[in-house]
Amino acid sequence: MGKGITYPMGFYANGISCGIKNNGKEDLSLIYSIAPCIASGTFTTNQFKSYSILWSIKNIKNKIRAILINSGNANTCNGKENYKLTEKLIEELAEKMNLEKNSILFASTGIIGERLPYEKIRSGFEQLIKNLSIENNLLAAKGIMTTDTFPKEYEINTGIQGRKKEVVIGGIVKGAGMINPCMATMLCFITTDAVIDKKALDIALKNAVEDSFNMITVDNDMSTNDTVICLANGLSKNKTIHIDTPEFELFSNSLRKLCIELAKKIAYDGEGASKFIEVRVNGGWCKKDVRRVAKKVAGSLLVKTAIAGENPNWGRILAAIGSTNARFDKKNIEVKICGISLFKGTEPQKYDEEELKLLLKNKEIKIEIDLKKGNFSATAWGCDLTENYVKINKEY
Amino acid sequence: MGKGITYPMGFYANGISCGIKNNGKEDLSLIYSIAPCIASGTFTTNQFKSYSILWSIKNIKNKIRAILINSGNANTCNGKENYKLTEKLIEELAEKMNLEKNSILFASTGIIGERLPYEKIRSGFEQLIKNLSIENNLLAAKGIMTTDTFPKEYEINTGIQGRKKEVVIGGIVKGAGMINPCMATMLCFITTDAVIDKKALDIALKNAVEDSFNMITVDNDMSTNDTVICLANGLSKNKTIHIDTPEFELFSNSLRKLCIELAKKIAYDGEGASKFIEVRVNGGWCKKDVRRVAKKVAGSLLVKTAIAGENPNWGRILAAIGSTNARFDKKNIEVKICGISLFKGTEPQKYDEEELKLLLKNKEIKIEIDLKKGNFSATAWGCDLTENYVKINKEY
Repeated sequence: MGKGITYPMGFYANGISCGIKNNGKEDLSLIYSIAPCIASGTFTTNQFKSYSILWSIKNIKNKIRAILINSGNANTCNGKENYKLTEKLIEELAEKMNLEKNSILFASTGIIGERLPYEKIRSGFEQLIKNLSIENNLLAAKGIMTTDTFPKEYEINTGIQGRKKEVVIGGIVKGAGMINPCMATMLCFITTDAVIDKKALDIALKNAVEDSFNMITVDNDMSTNDTVICLANGLSKNKTIHIDTPEFELFSNSLRKLCIELAKKIAYDGEGASKFIEVRVNGGWCKKDVRRVAKKVAGSLLVKTAIAGENPNWGRILAAIGSTNARFDKKNIEVKICGISLFKGTEPQKYDEEELKLLLKNKEIKIEIDLKKGNFSATAWGCDLTENYVKINKEY
Repeated sequence: MGKGITYPMGFYANGISCGIKNNGKEDLSLIYSIAPCIASGTFTTNQFKSYSILWSIKNIKNKIRAILINSGNANTCNGKENYKLTEKLIEELAEKMNLEKNSILFASTGIIGERLPYEKIRSGFEQLIKNLSIENNLLAAKGIMTTDTFPKEYEINTGIQGRKKEVVIGGIVKGAGMINPCMATMLCFITTDAVIDKKALDIALKNAVEDSFNMITVDNDMSTNDTVICLANGLSKNKTIHIDTPEFELFSNSLRKLCIELAKKIAYDGEGASKFIEVRVNGGWCKKDVRRVAKKVAGSLLVKTAIAGENPNWGRILAAIGSTNARFDKKNIEVKICGISLFKGTEPQKYDEEELKLLLKNKEIKIEIDLKKGNFSATAWGCDLTENYVKINKEY
């Protein structure tokens, strides 16, 4: 059995180098299902959308058999001619795979404004298709990477028993830069062998994305190419999951867990990051308030640089909280870093500076905020801001 | 005649080192008017406000004679006791200057969460008052600096003739870090010898701040201490300026020009910045749209790092524009960097790469965007993001 994207039954994958990246690394991936899939997707809300996304938005209502993904070229704002190239490319792939062209989705990531490397991509098709297998999940995860430093996969069991086997879910994701809290997300592909109706899959995915990819931030910049696609091929032969069947909660929770783990991998691998930051907000008056505060703190450049400097500058955390319009009890609010209370009520707290200094050397830093205004909670994930982020983006 | 803050008649200033900063640099400033002033102010909208700001908000309705400013300590979130210390400090200064305590405003900038250095500040009063003069405007500008690399002053003639002299305006400002587009601004003090009614001064200042300090961004972080205060002592003996007198426009335009010049100095001196960026947006459907796009582009970390790398990555500019909900004509939009058109309609443009490469070496970079949707325009100012920004904020 495969891992990641090929963990569910009937999914095959592959990743190759077709020459878009000039360092010889994988830059073209293919995900294939032996059975037609119900597909659900969330896409960037950026007004400029990749031509690849426009193709996928048009076709996601169909029964899907494959997803083609290239990295190194965003296929965005590169001129209208590239939409025609996109269509032509998918037509050729469909012919080679003996599929309908409207059963293939397409996603791209990389530099904006350059011509789609049509010839390079089509020249890779033969090798890409030939070596599709359940073992090549890792190659597919590598083929979608840009400035990521490691491939990102996850797989999960749902506890839902089908006639054939237990329903499982797998996924791959890429992240690193142009990661923003107000949008769909970066590229993420999820597979499941569940039998599930379209509406239930749409709702489960939307909710999972809300609590995972929409709660991470690397640099507050919204991409033109963000995509999450989930394919369900039904091969586990479970009783169909509808939103009112008891299995819906099991499936939704598993999908949420998978999305959160993949999202955390993105934050962990933020461009130039040396530390992973988790911001937990409790005691909120409503869901919107806690989400807003968590993302604001995780996204603050001053908080991010303080963490990079292993500097417990809680004043910057309070400034970020106060800059939102979230409700909190100004006389009771509490802020902790690494479990140590630093500000409570209206007063700075005494604490063991040496102990906190040591804790701040860890790779994973937890910030906890209690708004003392209600019962809602949210968690956001991010990373520190280092000189390397600047270096990477000056050059990229 | 003085410059900056002492350019208008009857204003005296001074700046000294009282020991808050441990490098011996100026950290305490005083601005004094020989006549009572009408005062207008805009303050941070952060929910956590400095105790110094709370004092000033309470007293700005009074006739004002002086403003005390310290740098190196924000007097924010440092415990309730510090509001009492604030009051005590102002009382002592009032006694020494023979003024009413409620005629003195107070502003602070620096680290959040540390006790107000009451003893250090009061020990400086004698020297501070003794050397108040129209020549010490530059010392006052230095006394409000934090990570600024140069003091920031500006002065302007209004063209309005008073019985005594022409009405003029002067100002000082500090910037560098925690500069954000959605708030009042950083510390800025403006003086004028105009005779003007309170309502007219409030409106002129509000409009000027909108087009100047609210259009700059360094790091998208909102401070707890932002303050703009304008004092008008009436010594030029002009005919009183009301909102319906012809001089109101002259005064407003001069005040706007002064605020824009001071705001640009902040962007110019952004923490770690190597380049100044001006983003001009034309062709907008409404004022909100052009302002939003200008600030979004100026604030994008990816645009800022591209400029730092002298990299004409216009795709990041389009991605930032598209991430807003501003209306634009997707078939006609145009983006220029340094006067060279890089994207127009739906197509990337051919351009002389060597020429642009040379232009990007300049210290001042202009980005022009035409939304092709209407007649509104706006300009935002910012700076590039360099490794030095990160270094400064890891350590500060």
